Amino acid sequence: MNYHMSPEQFREEGKKLIDWIADYYEQVEKYPVLSQVQPGNITKQLPNNAPEKGEEFSTVMKDVEQIIMPGITHWQSPNFFAYFQSNNSFPSILGDLLSSGLGVQGMLWATSPACTELETRVMDWLVDLKGLPKHFKSTENGGGVIQDTASSAVLAALLAARERKTNFACNQTGDNSGLVAYISTQTHSSVEKGVKVMGLGTDRLRRIEVDRHFAMRPDLLEKQIQQDLEAGLKPFFVCATIGTTSSNAVDPIEAIGRVCRQHSIWLHVDAAMSGTAALLPDYRQYFEGLELADSYAFNPHKWMFTNFDCDCFWVADKAVLIKTLSILPEYLKNEATEKGAVIDYRDWHVQLGRRFRSLKLWFVLRHYGAEGLRYHINQHIELTQLFTEWVKDSDDFELLSEPPFNLVLFRHTKGNEFNKYLMDCLNKDGKIYLTHTVLNGTFWLRMSIGQTQTEERHVQEAWRLIKEKAETL
Amino acid sequence: MNYHMSPEQFREEGKKLIDWIADYYEQVEKYPVLSQVQPGNITKQLPNNAPEKGEEFSTVMKDVEQIIMPGITHWQSPNFFAYFQSNNSFPSILGDLLSSGLGVQGMLWATSPACTELETRVMDWLVDLKGLPKHFKSTENGGGVIQDTASSAVLAALLAARERKTNFACNQTGDNSGLVAYISTQTHSSVEKGVKVMGLGTDRLRRIEVDRHFAMRPDLLEKQIQQDLEAGLKPFFVCATIGTTSSNAVDPIEAIGRVCRQHSIWLHVDAAMSGTAALLPDYRQYFEGLELADSYAFNPHKWMFTNFDCDCFWVADKAVLIKTLSILPEYLKNEATEKGAVIDYRDWHVQLGRRFRSLKLWFVLRHYGAEGLRYHINQHIELTQLFTEWVKDSDDFELLSEPPFNLVLFRHTKGNEFNKYLMDCLNKDGKIYLTHTVLNGTFWLRMSIGQTQTEERHVQEAWRLIKEKAETL
Repeated sequence: MNYHMSPEQFREEGKKLIDWIADYYEQVEKYPVLSQVQPGNITKQLPNNAPEKGEEFSTVMKDVEQIIMPGITHWQSPNFFAYFQSNNSFPSILGDLLSSGLGVQGMLWATSPACTELETRVMDWLVDLKGLPKHFKSTENGGGVIQDTASSAVLAALLAARERKTNFACNQTGDNSGLVAYISTQTHSSVEKGVKVMGLGTDRLRRIEVDRHFAMRPDLLEKQIQQDLEAGLKPFFVCATIGTTSSNAVDPIEAIGRVCRQHSIWLHVDAAMSGTAALLPDYRQYFEGLELADSYAFNPHKWMFTNFDCDCFWVADKAVLIKTLSILPEYLKNEATEKGAVIDYRDWHVQLGRRFRSLKLWFVLRHYGAEGLRYHINQHIELTQLFTEWVKDSDDFELLSEPPFNLVLFRHTKGNEFNKYLMDCLNKDGKIYLTHTVLNGTFWLRMSIGQTQTEERHVQEAWRLIKEKAETL
Repeated sequence: MNYHMSPEQFREEGKKLIDWIADYYEQVEKYPVLSQVQPGNITKQLPNNAPEKGEEFSTVMKDVEQIIMPGITHWQSPNFFAYFQSNNSFPSILGDLLSSGLGVQGMLWATSPACTELETRVMDWLVDLKGLPKHFKSTENGGGVIQDTASSAVLAALLAARERKTNFACNQTGDNSGLVAYISTQTHSSVEKGVKVMGLGTDRLRRIEVDRHFAMRPDLLEKQIQQDLEAGLKPFFVCATIGTTSSNAVDPIEAIGRVCRQHSIWLHVDAAMSGTAALLPDYRQYFEGLELADSYAFNPHKWMFTNFDCDCFWVADKAVLIKTLSILPEYLKNEATEKGAVIDYRDWHVQLGRRFRSLKLWFVLRHYGAEGLRYHINQHIELTQLFTEWVKDSDDFELLSEPPFNLVLFRHTKGNEFNKYLMDCLNKDGKIYLTHTVLNGTFWLRMSIGQTQTEERHVQEAWRLIKEKAETL
């Protein structure tokens, strides 16, 4: 006797679920993009207690359709233009399914060698595909690892930078006195969070002013560092961004990198959202200077057809990262680790356990090929340029600046309140979903164009809806 | 023109993959449990570069079979008795598939309300199912969140404890002076790692000696705290364990909790591996005193048929955790968050992004029902007791102590080197896989009995193989 689902039932329900997912993608446009439920709506439809007796799978799937689906904001809709895209693809879903099915633990090389070796290889592939500096490859001093998110990547970078600067003393003594980190006023909040987590404190985080394109000013960075040095402090970390979250600004990596080198400061470059653009040689200008970076991260789970979570993080000197994060209790000792012949990815991030995440990335790379990825990324950028032209041609709307990649910031000329009201009305209609930011007190609409199924007709229709709604308000 | 996989092809390949996974589980016993490849074996079969042109899905699956599978250590084999079990189930695979398919981001309530509300509800269900203190429920001051791993959970607990003790000053000033954390000599390495990550430094981590059952001695904890207080230090955190990794020892939670309360110290209880046993009322004696804990974690991805990653983490006072980890940049502002009517799980862990992890847990709970889970967990414990009896009845093997749950520590009487050799030989044969630990200089074999498909015949056969191998060495 047992309560397990039998392989036969799994075959049957699994195939139905595959069809369900295919149907979902074929019909995703029928849903309001932004879920229209109110707080508590889902909760009150779920019983107060877990069932005592097991239930039929079909009953659960009925609840998925009736209770869960109205509470879904459809990130995979071609009409989703909010936040950042988080574009998925069928090959990625299949890779992730295989990972769930195999159920292996990749904490050590020994606990599933393929999980480690495929990850290392795929991360090396991406260095070449994106034209990244060779020293990020595992065959050099560097190496790449899949982290869950860019937040975890920047935390790992902060920690490695701290230990390098303190000669690996802080891990033991906790003495972080005088350490100072630098970001711009536009850097993602994950660095501030990382600075809190690592116990440095936000007082020790300097926010460097930006130029009129919202990019960090290297002259002001240099000036602040000089001031801090004169005050006896120890600058140890700078985070530069290629494509900020708010407005897709690109910090001048090369100039910032030179400042960092001069003062032996760890440079982390965060290209979480826009890093995929480096697949296109024409866009590598924005990545110039990356050879001066100590670490670099981008998220295939944003703009490379790979479902969450998949952040690719590279370091130029893996020994520093490993020394910072390694722990080896007796119950994890094994021959391969002790010989030093292998990578144990447990020592590359906070977590010990890890799933076989490289499968989905490998499936995506092999399904699309470099050619297919370049084609679609280029398409997204072209659609963005098209939308940009429409905004520029319009009397009622204005553009923040020429978008470098696939995020347009624009606004109606009628001011902040009107724009916020316009956005809320559009999102409540449910036909498209877009979000906002505020820059120097001005409210801007953000249009992020990069969902897997987004085509010209969706962007056209979005623009028509935006104009129409603005006229009727 | 596009390079995407069509829904038709996804239906076809997805169904084949479902069959592939079902076949895998039906045939998993044919593989050597521990992968027999050497370092670099997998790598050298993978090309140096990503493909320029996309490839057929069938080609990729052929490589999965020929290149990847020999590099897999089969955690889902019924003959896997190593480390801890990481037991998977078909309902969990389906829940995870649905999560991959929907591809939603759950960082905020607003970005998919169902993702947040289902998680909250399922975490509340588990409080009742496991007989945990009611104050961990979201309807009280507490609440639960799914973290990726117990390492991330303990880091979150450390940070909340730090901020509570410093009145939320450390996040800003970085001043952690005098803070001291306490574990036993047997506590999992994740706490040491967390103490490094948070910048406290391992000098400020006290390892309390254990009793002869390897459980933390509360009298020595109290004594060390007194010493530290007299030295002007600030004890702020204790981690107690229900089921240590090495030997499944159970720290006396109630006695430790009283010490913590007396000195206003945050008590985190880690039951990553053994926490599932609380589903059985007969085993709740080991969890007594949990009402004195500030936080508690266990991993359904270890022993509750839910595939990695799924760590359940509760806090008694969610306001402290949220205040510790919250960040609210403009581009994430939204009405629901500002009204305070909702949970934004982004503020409950280091990461910002999060996938819809509660689906797989919900699928498991509904498929098995409380009854089914209790049945199987009880079965694993009974098999463990059976194995224990065999060891006790044997002249050649000895037992460390009566196992409380599902992990047996035993050894051949011939000494450390013999036992290590015995283990290596057994693992190289590939029929079973078990690992070891060292306690007070003595090498012990660890037999963790809890894989989904493990039945009495597998445990019997394992014992036969162990005895037979020992005789032939």
